[in-house]
Amino acid sequence: MSAFLDRWHEECGIVGVFGHPEAGTLVYLALYALQHRGQEASGIVACDGSDFHAHKGVGLVTQVFSEERLRILRGHIAIGHNRYATTGASSIANIQPLSICCAGGEISMAHNGNLVNADLLRRALKATGAIFQSTTDSEVILHLIARSRETGLVAQIADALRQVRGAYSLVFLTREGLIGVRDPHGVRPLALGRLAGGSVMLASETCAFDLIGAEYLRDVAPGEIVRINEKGIASFTPFPEAEPARCVFEHVYFARPDSRVFTQPVHGIRKRLGQELARESPVAADIVIAVPDSGVTAALGFAEVSGIPFDTGLIRNHYIGRTFIEPQQSIRHFGVKVKLNAVREVIEGRRVVVVDDSIVRGTTSRKIVKMIRAAGAKEIHMRISAPPTVSPCFYGIDTPTRQELIAADHTEDEIRKQITADSLKYLSMAGMFRAVYNKPDGDNRHFCAACFSGNYPIPLDEAAVKEETAQMALFEV
Amino acid sequence: MSAFLDRWHEECGIVGVFGHPEAGTLVYLALYALQHRGQEASGIVACDGSDFHAHKGVGLVTQVFSEERLRILRGHIAIGHNRYATTGASSIANIQPLSICCAGGEISMAHNGNLVNADLLRRALKATGAIFQSTTDSEVILHLIARSRETGLVAQIADALRQVRGAYSLVFLTREGLIGVRDPHGVRPLALGRLAGGSVMLASETCAFDLIGAEYLRDVAPGEIVRINEKGIASFTPFPEAEPARCVFEHVYFARPDSRVFTQPVHGIRKRLGQELARESPVAADIVIAVPDSGVTAALGFAEVSGIPFDTGLIRNHYIGRTFIEPQQSIRHFGVKVKLNAVREVIEGRRVVVVDDSIVRGTTSRKIVKMIRAAGAKEIHMRISAPPTVSPCFYGIDTPTRQELIAADHTEDEIRKQITADSLKYLSMAGMFRAVYNKPDGDNRHFCAACFSGNYPIPLDEAAVKEETAQMALFEV
Amino acid sequence: MSAFLDRWHEECGIVGVFGHPEAGTLVYLALYALQHRGQEASGIVACDGSDFHAHKGVGLVTQVFSEERLRILRGHIAIGHNRYATTGASSIANIQPLSICCAGGEISMAHNGNLVNADLLRRALKATGAIFQSTTDSEVILHLIARSRETGLVAQIADALRQVRGAYSLVFLTREGLIGVRDPHGVRPLALGRLAGGSVMLASETCAFDLIGAEYLRDVAPGEIVRINEKGIASFTPFPEAEPARCVFEHVYFARPDSRVFTQPVHGIRKRLGQELARESPVAADIVIAVPDSGVTAALGFAEVSGIPFDTGLIRNHYIGRTFIEPQQSIRHFGVKVKLNAVREVIEGRRVVVVDDSIVRGTTSRKIVKMIRAAGAKEIHMRISAPPTVSPCFYGIDTPTRQELIAADHTEDEIRKQITADSLKYLSMAGMFRAVYNKPDGDNRHFCAACFSGNYPIPLDEAAVKEETAQMALFEV
Amino acid sequence: MSAFLDRWHEECGIVGVFGHPEAGTLVYLALYALQHRGQEASGIVACDGSDFHAHKGVGLVTQVFSEERLRILRGHIAIGHNRYATTGASSIANIQPLSICCAGGEISMAHNGNLVNADLLRRALKATGAIFQSTTDSEVILHLIARSRETGLVAQIADALRQVRGAYSLVFLTREGLIGVRDPHGVRPLALGRLAGGSVMLASETCAFDLIGAEYLRDVAPGEIVRINEKGIASFTPFPEAEPARCVFEHVYFARPDSRVFTQPVHGIRKRLGQELARESPVAADIVIAVPDSGVTAALGFAEVSGIPFDTGLIRNHYIGRTFIEPQQSIRHFGVKVKLNAVREVIEGRRVVVVDDSIVRGTTSRKIVKMIRAAGAKEIHMRISAPPTVSPCFYGIDTPTRQELIAADHTEDEIRKQITADSLKYLSMAGMFRAVYNKPDGDNRHFCAACFSGNYPIPLDEAAVKEETAQMALFEV
Repeated sequence: MSAFLDRWHEECGIVGVFGHPEAGTLVYLALYALQHRGQEASGIVACDGSDFHAHKGVGLVTQVFSEERLRILRGHIAIGHNRYATTGASSIANIQPLSICCAGGEISMAHNGNLVNADLLRRALKATGAIFQSTTDSEVILHLIARSRETGLVAQIADALRQVRGAYSLVFLTREGLIGVRDPHGVRPLALGRLAGGSVMLASETCAFDLIGAEYLRDVAPGEIVRINEKGIASFTPFPEAEPARCVFEHVYFARPDSRVFTQPVHGIRKRLGQELARESPVAADIVIAVPDSGVTAALGFAEVSGIPFDTGLIRNHYIGRTFIEPQQSIRHFGVKVKLNAVREVIEGRRVVVVDDSIVRGTTSRKIVKMIRAAGAKEIHMRISAPPTVSPCFYGIDTPTRQELIAADHTEDEIRKQITADSLKYLSMAGMFRAVYNKPDGDNRHFCAACFSGNYPIPLDEAAVKEETAQMALFEV
Repeated sequence: MSAFLDRWHEECGIVGVFGHPEAGTLVYLALYALQHRGQEASGIVACDGSDFHAHKGVGLVTQVFSEERLRILRGHIAIGHNRYATTGASSIANIQPLSICCAGGEISMAHNGNLVNADLLRRALKATGAIFQSTTDSEVILHLIARSRETGLVAQIADALRQVRGAYSLVFLTREGLIGVRDPHGVRPLALGRLAGGSVMLASETCAFDLIGAEYLRDVAPGEIVRINEKGIASFTPFPEAEPARCVFEHVYFARPDSRVFTQPVHGIRKRLGQELARESPVAADIVIAVPDSGVTAALGFAEVSGIPFDTGLIRNHYIGRTFIEPQQSIRHFGVKVKLNAVREVIEGRRVVVVDDSIVRGTTSRKIVKMIRAAGAKEIHMRISAPPTVSPCFYGIDTPTRQELIAADHTEDEIRKQITADSLKYLSMAGMFRAVYNKPDGDNRHFCAACFSGNYPIPLDEAAVKEETAQMALFEV
Repeated sequence: MSAFLDRWHEECGIVGVFGHPEAGTLVYLALYALQHRGQEASGIVACDGSDFHAHKGVGLVTQVFSEERLRILRGHIAIGHNRYATTGASSIANIQPLSICCAGGEISMAHNGNLVNADLLRRALKATGAIFQSTTDSEVILHLIARSRETGLVAQIADALRQVRGAYSLVFLTREGLIGVRDPHGVRPLALGRLAGGSVMLASETCAFDLIGAEYLRDVAPGEIVRINEKGIASFTPFPEAEPARCVFEHVYFARPDSRVFTQPVHGIRKRLGQELARESPVAADIVIAVPDSGVTAALGFAEVSGIPFDTGLIRNHYIGRTFIEPQQSIRHFGVKVKLNAVREVIEGRRVVVVDDSIVRGTTSRKIVKMIRAAGAKEIHMRISAPPTVSPCFYGIDTPTRQELIAADHTEDEIRKQITADSLKYLSMAGMFRAVYNKPDGDNRHFCAACFSGNYPIPLDEAAVKEETAQMALFEV
Repeated sequence: MSAFLDRWHEECGIVGVFGHPEAGTLVYLALYALQHRGQEASGIVACDGSDFHAHKGVGLVTQVFSEERLRILRGHIAIGHNRYATTGASSIANIQPLSICCAGGEISMAHNGNLVNADLLRRALKATGAIFQSTTDSEVILHLIARSRETGLVAQIADALRQVRGAYSLVFLTREGLIGVRDPHGVRPLALGRLAGGSVMLASETCAFDLIGAEYLRDVAPGEIVRINEKGIASFTPFPEAEPARCVFEHVYFARPDSRVFTQPVHGIRKRLGQELARESPVAADIVIAVPDSGVTAALGFAEVSGIPFDTGLIRNHYIGRTFIEPQQSIRHFGVKVKLNAVREVIEGRRVVVVDDSIVRGTTSRKIVKMIRAAGAKEIHMRISAPPTVSPCFYGIDTPTRQELIAADHTEDEIRKQITADSLKYLSMAGMFRAVYNKPDGDNRHFCAACFSGNYPIPLDEAAVKEETAQMALFEV
């Protein structure tokens, strides 16, 4: 799904830089490279070894930070966060990094993921006098750290995280350096890189390394804590081993195609998704087009295997801002038209395969199909480069509710009718894993695919699920 | 001292309104009336019985709040705060009201005053796992409340405040209503009022009542806690009785002349200060002028007793904004000229008495004297309607350091030379209290006059004093 | 009338500086000193001998200009303009200085006053192909200059101005220097000053000289053109002599009391207005108070002659911004209360003389009287330090329409009833001129007092009057 | 050339809507669709049959216009303009539409193109008293209209345009309706469309019609004036016929691929450019990639003919704002990296054909080549889908100076060395015209290709050329 009215939202991108005189500016550039992981708000905290300097704001990275603001973010250590709200209302207090002052000194933290037992812990902490300033699940982690009886921040963090359950990739900033953590299941990515002068860097995706010229070293391992300071990089593995549950949606949908995620280049996976799709669901057609930009790579794969030529049948307008003013008198398919326009010359009189990476509610797909039909297509064959999404995510992705997910309670053919396509095919689960593993018998053992299967690898807090589902119901109205 | 480069700063004005459908807007208007008590930042939190709605920002009340912002502040209960920083750096996190979520639910608090044992308590709280979000002393109070084992918020507040030492007038906002507190010494003011429809109001000064048409009922008493909710106003006195130590500077300098403070109308006191000054330090002169606006009332008192006519010899420009751009090539007495201009016609060829309410560093007074001299004055006699200020305040006023206070280590005659006046006289301590009490034998028993005497009625934390003095020394450079 | 809801508005303040490396910043400071002459918009154009640099904006001087903006205004010559709209809608194109490029090169102009035959000329110019960019009357002057067949800018300006009728003080900026003009009747003021280093300055009032340390030399004479460039100051008198018609309202109402206007210090005139008023309309009372700030000087004069003590019975709040948010549920006398508060202690139980400088519609006066009554006054005696205002101004003051002027068709006693005062007295015309001339037999020969008398010294364009009256009628609805 | 540091700039997009109650909002949407034609500033003027309502500002369309601003733009007729400065400094006065008031009433005009005899005309107009407010060449047209002795606006416009020489597509707004004009050579495009309810529309490209659901009717013909009002669409051809000289660069570079320009769909031309390029300059390689977004269509054409597979080897980041902050310590190829990232997986170990649409200075191409090399390419073969650009444009495109155009004085091989590619080939002139005409013997008779050939179809004002060249020389320093 590519048009702005109907999308999956990643919740966060996180970054850390240690040992560079312009650490704040490098974090800013890295957050810009990770902008696709969260466009709602952004924050950076830098430290010069003594004072912490912070700036946060609502909007895109380039809107939140000016040259003047970056000048304030002095120091050789910095962390940053891009946010798309999962939990916590949209207030300044909820924008990360979160900064606190506790017995261990000043600490800032940025979190990608979502805890499933945060409410329980929150209630327990309050009962003993804890004060909460934000409504994010992430603040719970800081309280557990502040209260840990362990010695040393790494041990305190490990102590705190042994009490939480869920998905978390974390970067911490202290006066001495950075600490990076990935949860034992390794749900969310976190990569380690090195800059030319020896500075060390952490980032959700490797495209952030590319922009500022850092080299990708390796992933922070599931369950690993890395401490980065003047002495170098130290690694700790304080958690019991757990079954890997990497988020397959990162590969299929979220990550930038020029990134490596979970050590694998994303572009190749995307292309193979299209190839598998062409093998599973071939169709007689004249042209393959993509819903840009996210569907392009899979569409190239589909074209390659099917032998049907690829062309740019939809053009995307990138000048869009945050607020777009709609005329009172409705223009047909307005929402989609602000972003996309069909190229009549490519489409007219042709049997068209349209490759997209997902269908959420179906409303946008329907508008796209109608737009392509209006441009003269003879037949329209939708091909989705992933299985149907049937279950919400509780590990950090801003999914629509079950009721909003059209695939949750509609068959492929029902959806096809709704979006008015001549045919519709999703990729199979097996096909997806063949593409992800790049071998004929890929299976699901190392990934979380709960959104496609409903099987949640990390047990959910039943109460939380109910509450969340109730809330979702409210939002639907 | 009246010009903007060299002033005492009050730290805060606080307000609360209960039981009015537009509580947020009334608090906004009241904060506007209390703008003189803090111009750096402003905040309001409102509650509709369920949700809390907050807005804070840097700047004047009319800059921080727009109509749109006020619309968000829904609810029939609201509190607000104007701030001039005393402790705590100038960040958003430090702007009050402070809002927290704890076992007792959501609470917001606004604080006028300063605690002298905040650092000690902060360290102790951190040692048991407390997390601090701001660097204000006020946050300590919230932690002590969240940790109290007492039952009920009033009891928890009392429990918390029994552990702190210093000056505090407080307003709390909860889902049910307001709570107002004044410390046992009654250092800072807090008045109780009633609006036409029965709504109840708390405010630092009664001028806030006048603007929105509320009636002044009484002061919250020293050591009193008032709880205002649907059942009415309940009063609690949970603290051991203490010696009154009202801040005399409120009368002499800070409060608006149209306010009542500590039950007394301020205008009359200011006028009597001028009368006493004329009795103590008469001088043969042709005209009495004031440094506007704050010196005017005392100057009228001086004129009345001395029989020398009063005239407006200095005109004040009120269009000034927060930032004023200075030319590179220095204009003589520039800083003062942006605010004041001498009226040559009033001054030329005359022996002039200039009444002001204080001298801080002496630099501004010197510029004013020179400006008056340049306008043709034959003689210039400075008369200050208060005693020399010799000691910093630790109870909530943003005083210059001891080293910056010219009167701390200079005699009256040395100051006279520095400011280049023909004569200079301060009011005596006894004269000040005669004016304050409006009787011939006024004494100091019920007021804190530490800034004039160096006698601190609430014992200071020795370490804190040292640290603060050290910091002050830093700022001086 | 002093409260913001009901005021006369001056239309403009103008400034020019020649021969100073920071001419733009000096003009900015001078405009700040002249802020009372126009608060709606502001503009500066500077020239470095080659390029023109301009910045204009809506708002107060300190809002329109930032340090960055001033840096752009490079050059040793600059002119500036504060505006309160008289003619011309409130668009950017109408903010002065107006800059044009014509055969004579680039010229910028700032205008204080109003032309009475602008519409006629505008129509004639259009008929020959002229293009107008603004809707201001001032643009007509520029067209006439651009079309003049005379040689040299001074001759062209004289040629142009011989064709216009009305009130105008003008400053022009060219690559070579400044040109200042005052119309033959001398309706609006324009003063000439000199800075320490030899720079020359033009300004509407001398308070602008005081702020930046310039010395007042003399007024530009009625009908005089002064040309200021590297060779010095040259004077031209190209117009036939005319009867002087200085605007008496400048003295009575508009100008700052610390200014000289038409060579006379304003403060003394204001004070004598109060003195004459006390002589003409004495009353038995306990206290004299003023409507601040503009009524204070006359109130002191009234107190002096009457022997009744002056006190500050009304306090003005100066923190007001441009937009003030009003509660839905009306607060009594809200509009006035935002600006003024009564000091009960001064007023309670007393017979009060309230001195103000005018009554426009009467609504604000009524609110003030009621506010004073509510503060406990036994009797309230309004004294107005000018005659009743009965006719609109066509020479550059933003007057209400005739229908809005309460004095236009109500007797003194009718007005008294409307404003609910116990007595009301205006100063007589003769009394006003005694005060202005400072002699017992002052007469009206050298002043325009049309607003008090309806006698217009410069013939009006009948059509224009009708149209303007029609427009006014529209605005009234 | 696709990266933001080194691009050709179109100067303008223009739009007009007649007969729709939300004309202003439709123009806003159309300008958004034409954003690629000018990103520096934007303006809309609307008319409700009586008053003109305007808003202009610096920035993207979505930045300049808010909902509130659009509400002000009332009326059923509106015109708009996107601007990238060609002539005229970057001041508010130069942002179009230009609005004037002349004998014929109020008129607004938006201009796409550039006049070659504007300076001459400007001087002549000034000599007869004309006043210029902007420094744009467009203002000359308005003066000529205002001075025309013809009767009726269409005749006056024709009269005015017979005096100018150059490239112009124009839309005019009057109280009655729209007027659209295209110069006799038809250099710039202008298309006519119709909305569902019968409203009529003019726009530079048809993609503006698509967004708001208008139907493309036909092009305004070279030398045609269309008048659109309540009576319908009237066509006038008042100019002597001239040789067509359509700007071929619109096809090759500027227009959106989903637009029709000069009646032809752009996408097909772009694709054929790539096909011709593959035929003219084949190369043994493993992969074809494009410099996104503008090079993609030609790259697909190249891939198709060559049989080498196309892949997305460069990813573009679209979140960029207007100001991007660069670190002090230079990151290699920083400028390019902010926009582009190489996909190592696609490139590594491969022989790569890179298709781009132009090379301006060569610096960006060099950075792109080095970025691809760093991603592991074995060979890099640059293919440019247009001939070398050797001459500046005087008809409305913001070209670099001759000295900045690397192809102006370097051979293909010299350029290849500079950009460090293994091979470099431009498309031939003949190849370009084969693609444009879509027939084997396409020639240049109907197009202006001066930027590729130096042959200027409209005679230039010699003085102007010299001056412009001199200015360019200045800018180079």
